[in-house]
Amino acid sequence: RKQTEISAAEMVDAILSGDRTILSRAITLIESNAGRHKKTAEEILQSLLPRAGKSVRIGITGVPGAGKSTFIESFGLLLCNKGHRVAVLAVDPSSTVHGGSILGDKTRMEQLAKHPNAFIRPSPSGGTLGGVHRKTRETMIACEAAGYDVLLIETVGVGQSEVLVRGMVDFFMLLVLTGAGDELQGMKKGIMELADAVIVNKADGRNLELAKKTQREYKQILHFLQPATQGWTTPALTCSALFKQGIEEIWEMVLRYIEVTKASGLFQENRKMQAKEWLYALIKEELESAFFGDEKVKSLVPGIEKKVMDEEITVTKASGLLFDAFYDRLC
Amino acid sequence: RKQTEISAAEMVDAILSGDRTILSRAITLIESNAGRHKKTAEEILQSLLPRAGKSVRIGITGVPGAGKSTFIESFGLLLCNKGHRVAVLAVDPSSTVHGGSILGDKTRMEQLAKHPNAFIRPSPSGGTLGGVHRKTRETMIACEAAGYDVLLIETVGVGQSEVLVRGMVDFFMLLVLTGAGDELQGMKKGIMELADAVIVNKADGRNLELAKKTQREYKQILHFLQPATQGWTTPALTCSALFKQGIEEIWEMVLRYIEVTKASGLFQENRKMQAKEWLYALIKEELESAFFGDEKVKSLVPGIEKKVMDEEITVTKASGLLFDAFYDRLC
Repeated sequence: RKQTEISAAEMVDAILSGDRTILSRAITLIESNAGRHKKTAEEILQSLLPRAGKSVRIGITGVPGAGKSTFIESFGLLLCNKGHRVAVLAVDPSSTVHGGSILGDKTRMEQLAKHPNAFIRPSPSGGTLGGVHRKTRETMIACEAAGYDVLLIETVGVGQSEVLVRGMVDFFMLLVLTGAGDELQGMKKGIMELADAVIVNKADGRNLELAKKTQREYKQILHFLQPATQGWTTPALTCSALFKQGIEEIWEMVLRYIEVTKASGLFQENRKMQAKEWLYALIKEELESAFFGDEKVKSLVPGIEKKVMDEEITVTKASGLLFDAFYDRLC
Repeated sequence: RKQTEISAAEMVDAILSGDRTILSRAITLIESNAGRHKKTAEEILQSLLPRAGKSVRIGITGVPGAGKSTFIESFGLLLCNKGHRVAVLAVDPSSTVHGGSILGDKTRMEQLAKHPNAFIRPSPSGGTLGGVHRKTRETMIACEAAGYDVLLIETVGVGQSEVLVRGMVDFFMLLVLTGAGDELQGMKKGIMELADAVIVNKADGRNLELAKKTQREYKQILHFLQPATQGWTTPALTCSALFKQGIEEIWEMVLRYIEVTKASGLFQENRKMQAKEWLYALIKEELESAFFGDEKVKSLVPGIEKKVMDEEITVTKASGLLFDAFYDRLC
């Protein structure tokens, strides 16, 4: 469908005045991989940047089936009804691999999607992991400038995405099901240690007792682990997203976290460190795509990789051969 | 002190015939950062490579005070007395930071150092993390070609070194003290999940009961974690390195591990993957040192980093400015 061309400055004004259609269109520009969109997107972001940053950024992860959508619907509605403006974004590097539901799908959060204070942006399809990562952080800037003061970043707790999301939020929560032991076996290594809170969902009906037991198990495990955030003891809570129980307590906990980390200065310090780490991550990614995207390097890699794996040449030698090809082409 | 100049080919012959003095000298060449040594070292390694690989590579980590030296002395002596030839190498990227004892220090393994079947190489002083890493893997090639059939790679369980060491060994063991809970609090995140065995040391005298209790605690925690190696349940054992108790059982466990992983094909598969991952790690490191070592980039980084942290420019913009400078100088 055709869109009327409007200038970057016009888009910025519309976003700042709360125009959701233009916000969506700007995010599409930000997510675009087309070269001609890059300059416009950068111009828009640079103008929005001074208006961004005034939000609480919350990451939410959990294995498929943990009830992330239902939780975000309940949690988001509670916040919207309190007068907050809530943006839901999704980081899903593997939506095609895992098939099934798309993160941030509006049909999975029907009530929230209809609320005037909510903005739901489904995960961008395609694009590399790093790409999704970069784009999501920039989408956050746009949402914040548009006045959304709570950002919920949803991701699936498999692969690398939760590490990336951890690096762009103030608070990171892990949503789990009952039966800690069984589930942890299948959970990604180290994910517990990224969490500022573990939430046992589906604590309702016949599941309630088991949920309490699971909560105790998680508390015990958390006791042995280093907390994700210095000066904050990672709690294990229960809730029923479906029956909207325990949701208010979770928000109160987040507020407590913000109070504690703002008082200690860690809140701002974390954001500064995250911006810095993001810069280095981006540079590394771009260096690697320049190197491994080089035609000559690409043609040599399979053979050299095989020789290294078969221990026919040393790694130093192999690396040297590839760098010779890279620099030779570059200059 | 002056050394008689001998050719790379002569050094290779001497190493293959078991000359320890020449092996030491070759390792010094390998560890050297001088450009003129690089070519010789590479030539030597390329010749040694076909003779390498026939060893068991064991990584040993633990917090300072866990008794790593005493353990390596007891474990190494047991193997030497069984007729194995044992090389002890150390990866210590932070020896200056942690002060105290130098890993692989011969005076800490007096008996082992005197054994004709043992070769102890202290950790190289200075050099970057990546540098030590790369050099250690190449030193392993030299030791294997020289006939050492058990390599013990010692590292301290803090920082990043244990991840690097995990990526270059067949079996990784974590040496711990009694009192799992207290110690785990101070232990690096995720280190338990890298281990193929947890060894509770100092299980002797009045400490014996506490060691058994600690062993049970670790078993419980390990039950919740994914094993480091597929198809191998990470055990928790006790030993007394000082009184040489439980050491034989640890070696038997390593042999069982080798049997299991060789039968499943994982042993060789792991080594292939490690060689490949090492290649990519090396390339990434060299790309980054080319970029961040560039004079123009170096001069721009502090200002740009500050602007990013103060949210004055977007990360994309900042990265673009640095890449412009890099490519401008390169060509």
